[in-house]
Amino acid sequence: MAKKRTKKHNKKSGLAPGSVIYTGDKSDKNLFIEVFDYNKDQCIEKELHSIEEAFDFKLTDCVSWININGLNHVDAIERLGTHFSLHPLVIEDLVSISQRPKIDEYEDYLFVVLKMLYLDAEEKVNYEQVSFILGPNYVLSFQESEGDVFGSVRERIRLGKGRVRTMQSDYLLYILMDAIVDEYFSVIETLGDKIEDLETDIFEGSIEESATKVIQELKKEVLKVRRSIFPLREVINRIEKHESELIQQRTKTYYRDIYDHLIQVTENIDIYREMIWSLMDMYMTTISNKMNEVMKVLTIMASIFIPLTFIAGIYGMNFEYIPELHYKYSYFILWGVMIVLFIGMLIYFKRRKWL
Amino acid sequence: MAKKRTKKHNKKSGLAPGSVIYTGDKSDKNLFIEVFDYNKDQCIEKELHSIEEAFDFKLTDCVSWININGLNHVDAIERLGTHFSLHPLVIEDLVSISQRPKIDEYEDYLFVVLKMLYLDAEEKVNYEQVSFILGPNYVLSFQESEGDVFGSVRERIRLGKGRVRTMQSDYLLYILMDAIVDEYFSVIETLGDKIEDLETDIFEGSIEESATKVIQELKKEVLKVRRSIFPLREVINRIEKHESELIQQRTKTYYRDIYDHLIQVTENIDIYREMIWSLMDMYMTTISNKMNEVMKVLTIMASIFIPLTFIAGIYGMNFEYIPELHYKYSYFILWGVMIVLFIGMLIYFKRRKWL
Amino acid sequence: MAKKRTKKHNKKSGLAPGSVIYTGDKSDKNLFIEVFDYNKDQCIEKELHSIEEAFDFKLTDCVSWININGLNHVDAIERLGTHFSLHPLVIEDLVSISQRPKIDEYEDYLFVVLKMLYLDAEEKVNYEQVSFILGPNYVLSFQESEGDVFGSVRERIRLGKGRVRTMQSDYLLYILMDAIVDEYFSVIETLGDKIEDLETDIFEGSIEESATKVIQELKKEVLKVRRSIFPLREVINRIEKHESELIQQRTKTYYRDIYDHLIQVTENIDIYREMIWSLMDMYMTTISNKMNEVMKVLTIMASIFIPLTFIAGIYGMNFEYIPELHYKYSYFILWGVMIVLFIGMLIYFKRRKWL
Amino acid sequence: MAKKRTKKHNKKSGLAPGSVIYTGDKSDKNLFIEVFDYNKDQCIEKELHSIEEAFDFKLTDCVSWININGLNHVDAIERLGTHFSLHPLVIEDLVSISQRPKIDEYEDYLFVVLKMLYLDAEEKVNYEQVSFILGPNYVLSFQESEGDVFGSVRERIRLGKGRVRTMQSDYLLYILMDAIVDEYFSVIETLGDKIEDLETDIFEGSIEESATKVIQELKKEVLKVRRSIFPLREVINRIEKHESELIQQRTKTYYRDIYDHLIQVTENIDIYREMIWSLMDMYMTTISNKMNEVMKVLTIMASIFIPLTFIAGIYGMNFEYIPELHYKYSYFILWGVMIVLFIGMLIYFKRRKWL
Amino acid sequence: MAKKRTKKHNKKSGLAPGSVIYTGDKSDKNLFIEVFDYNKDQCIEKELHSIEEAFDFKLTDCVSWININGLNHVDAIERLGTHFSLHPLVIEDLVSISQRPKIDEYEDYLFVVLKMLYLDAEEKVNYEQVSFILGPNYVLSFQESEGDVFGSVRERIRLGKGRVRTMQSDYLLYILMDAIVDEYFSVIETLGDKIEDLETDIFEGSIEESATKVIQELKKEVLKVRRSIFPLREVINRIEKHESELIQQRTKTYYRDIYDHLIQVTENIDIYREMIWSLMDMYMTTISNKMNEVMKVLTIMASIFIPLTFIAGIYGMNFEYIPELHYKYSYFILWGVMIVLFIGMLIYFKRRKWL
Repeated sequence: MAKKRTKKHNKKSGLAPGSVIYTGDKSDKNLFIEVFDYNKDQCIEKELHSIEEAFDFKLTDCVSWININGLNHVDAIERLGTHFSLHPLVIEDLVSISQRPKIDEYEDYLFVVLKMLYLDAEEKVNYEQVSFILGPNYVLSFQESEGDVFGSVRERIRLGKGRVRTMQSDYLLYILMDAIVDEYFSVIETLGDKIEDLETDIFEGSIEESATKVIQELKKEVLKVRRSIFPLREVINRIEKHESELIQQRTKTYYRDIYDHLIQVTENIDIYREMIWSLMDMYMTTISNKMNEVMKVLTIMASIFIPLTFIAGIYGMNFEYIPELHYKYSYFILWGVMIVLFIGMLIYFKRRKWL
Repeated sequence: MAKKRTKKHNKKSGLAPGSVIYTGDKSDKNLFIEVFDYNKDQCIEKELHSIEEAFDFKLTDCVSWININGLNHVDAIERLGTHFSLHPLVIEDLVSISQRPKIDEYEDYLFVVLKMLYLDAEEKVNYEQVSFILGPNYVLSFQESEGDVFGSVRERIRLGKGRVRTMQSDYLLYILMDAIVDEYFSVIETLGDKIEDLETDIFEGSIEESATKVIQELKKEVLKVRRSIFPLREVINRIEKHESELIQQRTKTYYRDIYDHLIQVTENIDIYREMIWSLMDMYMTTISNKMNEVMKVLTIMASIFIPLTFIAGIYGMNFEYIPELHYKYSYFILWGVMIVLFIGMLIYFKRRKWL
Repeated sequence: MAKKRTKKHNKKSGLAPGSVIYTGDKSDKNLFIEVFDYNKDQCIEKELHSIEEAFDFKLTDCVSWININGLNHVDAIERLGTHFSLHPLVIEDLVSISQRPKIDEYEDYLFVVLKMLYLDAEEKVNYEQVSFILGPNYVLSFQESEGDVFGSVRERIRLGKGRVRTMQSDYLLYILMDAIVDEYFSVIETLGDKIEDLETDIFEGSIEESATKVIQELKKEVLKVRRSIFPLREVINRIEKHESELIQQRTKTYYRDIYDHLIQVTENIDIYREMIWSLMDMYMTTISNKMNEVMKVLTIMASIFIPLTFIAGIYGMNFEYIPELHYKYSYFILWGVMIVLFIGMLIYFKRRKWL
Repeated sequence: MAKKRTKKHNKKSGLAPGSVIYTGDKSDKNLFIEVFDYNKDQCIEKELHSIEEAFDFKLTDCVSWININGLNHVDAIERLGTHFSLHPLVIEDLVSISQRPKIDEYEDYLFVVLKMLYLDAEEKVNYEQVSFILGPNYVLSFQESEGDVFGSVRERIRLGKGRVRTMQSDYLLYILMDAIVDEYFSVIETLGDKIEDLETDIFEGSIEESATKVIQELKKEVLKVRRSIFPLREVINRIEKHESELIQQRTKTYYRDIYDHLIQVTENIDIYREMIWSLMDMYMTTISNKMNEVMKVLTIMASIFIPLTFIAGIYGMNFEYIPELHYKYSYFILWGVMIVLFIGMLIYFKRRKWL
Repeated sequence: MAKKRTKKHNKKSGLAPGSVIYTGDKSDKNLFIEVFDYNKDQCIEKELHSIEEAFDFKLTDCVSWININGLNHVDAIERLGTHFSLHPLVIEDLVSISQRPKIDEYEDYLFVVLKMLYLDAEEKVNYEQVSFILGPNYVLSFQESEGDVFGSVRERIRLGKGRVRTMQSDYLLYILMDAIVDEYFSVIETLGDKIEDLETDIFEGSIEESATKVIQELKKEVLKVRRSIFPLREVINRIEKHESELIQQRTKTYYRDIYDHLIQVTENIDIYREMIWSLMDMYMTTISNKMNEVMKVLTIMASIFIPLTFIAGIYGMNFEYIPELHYKYSYFILWGVMIVLFIGMLIYFKRRKWL
């Protein structure tokens, strides 16, 4: 998948920096824009039909959350960017979905990029890039397509639950990011479950040849999740240290809270990573143990019957003068000898704990 | 277990930040509140029946230790928090038991979260979250349930042993944290014993197939203990550097002492961690050595008897003209040849040190 | 190849520092010089026939890009360097192709060295050293030979696309470096593909003995690419922090953008590196699994037929008194016994999941 | 042994911090106190019979070295500590032998704890804690028991060799610590010898099953030595940066010298550590090589004789019509065929380099 | 060899710090002193017969390079040191050859210690300690014995090539150190070649049992070279940041150049280190692959002939009633059956790709 991502990047190579080009897969999505415009007393929720309708919300006294879905509509996004006086590189990054989580601090707005992780129906991890522009009294959010983890945020704004309606745009950005980080917990919990399942399977020997493949896939997934989440710590850190009107002092405590959650997530990821690395070793010892079993069976069978066969071979020889052949009870005595040898062998292997 | 923890976290996803919800398992515990209120001259020890009784202790001249057990009683804790003017996020964190050890510095109190580790009857490590609020002349402590490592602290306050009765609340917090850190030593000592036992078992070959499982379990335990203890170093460090009336200069020497203990604990943990990693390698060589043994037995048996059987086979053939068959001493000569071969083989294997 | 590089270096050992000697392979290349001299209104593009023609461009008001190909022409480069008042060590470094990416800040120019990576027809990674001198209104670039990744840059200057014609020389340097960094994505993407192909081959068992060799080669390639790219981050960082007229404040945002790309590239490289390291482990388990298969076949064959052969051997003995030999149905009964044994064995191995 | 150490620690759990309790094993040692009191012109050397005799040396104009052996005599040490105005925690740490090397800076004295390492008769590493109190004109040293590495220091003071008699107490502390660090070299040299011996043994195959055990023991020893020595670097560093009358500027050069020695020691330790880690891999390949040898012998024997035995079996069959049986030279021809097969096999295995 | 080094150190343990004692092996070397005294206009080159003759060069206006070979002549070196007012510890370090590369900055001179590495005739790495004293207009260099890498430096001073004759003593020190660092490239190049040769040998299976030994030796050599070179980076760094008349601003650019070379050297060393670590893994897979081959041969032989031998055994039985024995074509039919079985087996193994 790294392959895919870089290919997307390559769509742009050779172009002038600042060229605004959508680099994702979802090029047939509709443009979906919703706006929440609220203060302590009221809350307007609206779906917009053209990007131009969003322009007015820049200047309202209320806090506005303008949520744009559909990064393939680059023209609309470019027009919006120009209206909100965004730097050309910001507009370029908005639609270039291979960004690493980062924050760019401009004079009158902050530009934050991060990854929204969520599980689809088959428990596969999905990655979607979400960008935020935090202005004095608005937050713009940009997603590739509809569908997100912000359901509870919408609910809280509508119903005025919690503090959100009494706070500024920096608090709005906080609850949006908090919703994303909360989802990280589910994702890594699922990864953890998969690792533990795999561990159990290896112990019980239920998977065989494909084990290395499954381990390798899990390893890659963990590395990818890690790469999507780790840089966010630095982003939050920068927000906490940001010195301007955009982030108020009292809100920083909340960002500190996200930071603590992120540390927890990343610590878990690193523990899972260590676990996966040792899975391969575990699998290796499992294989070796099995081979040991196989070898023991072979050795026991061969060690018991090869000498007996030799003895039988002796008396199958056609020499004229073999005195034992003519003795009447030879055959029965031989059986006795063989049975004694057989039992002796069994005892020997029992003592060595091979049986 | 990481799974469990994150599940607890998820109880909260989708809720407004600041929602005060207990995230632990122990939801049927009674609320148990005890208070120690003391100065140089006197010491009052009391069990409270409602949270409201604790409110008055905020203002006494004496140092007060209010110990609240039962985080499932969120209402009571919320009322207490409001009375003591705690930040909403602090109240939220108090009852959310998946916290990482941390310190939050507020204007007139410190909020410290850490993990109390202790061994249960089966020598399993138990983790319980303990939070402290350090105010000008009080310490609030919050535990999930009754039962803790503070027995000696209570004794010392009651009897006025040591310096505790002549010092302020910062010293009280110190002896509480010191009691917790002291317990860490027992816990990691037990872990160390388990590792050494496992090591011995592997050397002596007493455990077999389950070894990887036991190693993996120990690895996880060490990683979990590590995660519970490591961040505490940063917490103590922050207390030492804290600049306010809450932590007096003369007490900082004592916190430095805890810090030194913590460094010792964490160094031990890291050594155990390295030990465990090499256990898997050791186990692997043990397996290989065993397979070598098995292979040698097989090779010796096969190498000795296969050629002898071949010779017996030769004289079992039914050709009409095999001159040896008719010679009188053939059979005995053949036995001689076989015995010589047999002994020769034994000498050969002896020389190669396979016997 | 490290060998080759150091050998190149050795060409110089024993010489006075500052000796200007070309250390590369391509000693028969022509000197090819091209100039772009442009401002907002016009753009002159010219191929020069002697290095002296380039001297005048130092003083034009326009921004000049002088691109020199053919580092073997040390005399010409030395003359150019002297005319542009370059430090002797800079001139030495220009033609010494074993440089690490670095930046040297002089009073009135910056000297930047980096590696241009591109893939040749066989998808092999090629490394070419490119040096830049950034002066107040000119950029000198030095390459070993013609052929580069600057095609799109030329196009943009010619046609006045993007901002380039309205910006200063620092922006020109930026788009040149951006073109190089963009190419890194293709290179590491190809490396990533090779690693994934190898992974698939190992899983499917299509490559055998040579696998370690291929893995080792890939490992070396990744380490070499890493070494060529990693130091560049520090270079860009230093440009961003550079305090002089040469780098304007508004251009720094653009360098920040390159920096972000570099972080992405280097993160990918590190993930690939981890992947390669685990490939060897994967290959090892694959081998062990195969050996297990081989052993099982041997054990099954031997365990089934060795006892049966023993039984046949018994009745091949020539004792005079073996009662069974004379019983009429002995032979058929024996067949029955053998078939029962055979089937019993099969069931046993089936149960152990060896079949 | 980590176990033992923590057990010692636990002797104290539950006690008030500051409780002065000896945590070591050597509880039956006599108290042995010696004093050196010297200046440029004279030197008094004395053995004291009670701790109180030492009190006067605090105020003499000469430099005094008071060396106390026998940490089990806690009362005496407590009285001494009180007389020299030591902080309660310092007195506690003096007799608690599980300290990590550390320095505590107090207003008018420095408290330094480190580990004295020396080899006993069986070349085992012994660890003894040594604490120093550096005052304006005295050094107090505390050891568990008599016997140390300070012989040369005493000699130098007595005879006035070197600079010691003309320098202050900070120089005395330096030569004491220097004597300890010098001994580290012998200790790690011996560890290095053990590692190289083990390496040779593994190469030559002289040790077998116990190799993992020996490797693991060495690993632990190296880790323990490392832990005893590493923190000392920080201690020396702090002394060098210490700003007070206690450490004079001209003495710091000497501490720098100890620091350089310590870096050498720790670098060697880290190299030994890496060596040990690779020993296990080496041992593993040795085992695998041996198994290869065993397998080759088995395969050669089986591959040669199994087909020959088959041929003999063919002509041991009792079919009535086997034409070859009646031909006169069959037996001899068969021998020829078998010998050809045998030699062919040998050549084949020779070519594969198995012989 | 670490052993040897520490033994040397131990020669000194128990001695007063500052004791000037030669710790190397070469105690029978002659004292060889040469002087270069030069300025722009002239150059005197002289071999001195006693150390006292060197004293005058301290005060000449010219730049003087006094090169002393033969550290066993400690008296002479001590007299020289005293004349040049060197600190006692410096004189001690000059003749103690187990120093780590370091720089000590004194008020009117710099003391630099580093390791000269060069290859002897058998391509073994030789280590010789070289110390420099950089004074206002002189450089003292100290070597254990004659023979060094300074040939080109002498030539350049004699002939006035390059800038050396017009520069101060700091530039002289630079070209001396540059000569040493240039030699590092040859040394690590040779190490690199050895590693690649070993790699090829392992791939081709040409070395066998001794491979681990060779790998381990190489690993040690790389670690030793690394330890000799790494600390030098810090030394050069300190020279660059040194603030005094001794190092002129314009010379620092040159030291920067050495620094860049050192980074290149150390990066190569680290890559070689990683390569060596993976050699052991490679060797392990090679062994396993070989064992697989051996096992396949055994399994094929056994699987084919054991069943056939069983069949032959059946008809070797002496039952009176075996109907097949009397049927005329039985023997030939049996051969047919056996050949079919044989071919079937071959096809089976072909399909499994074992043949």
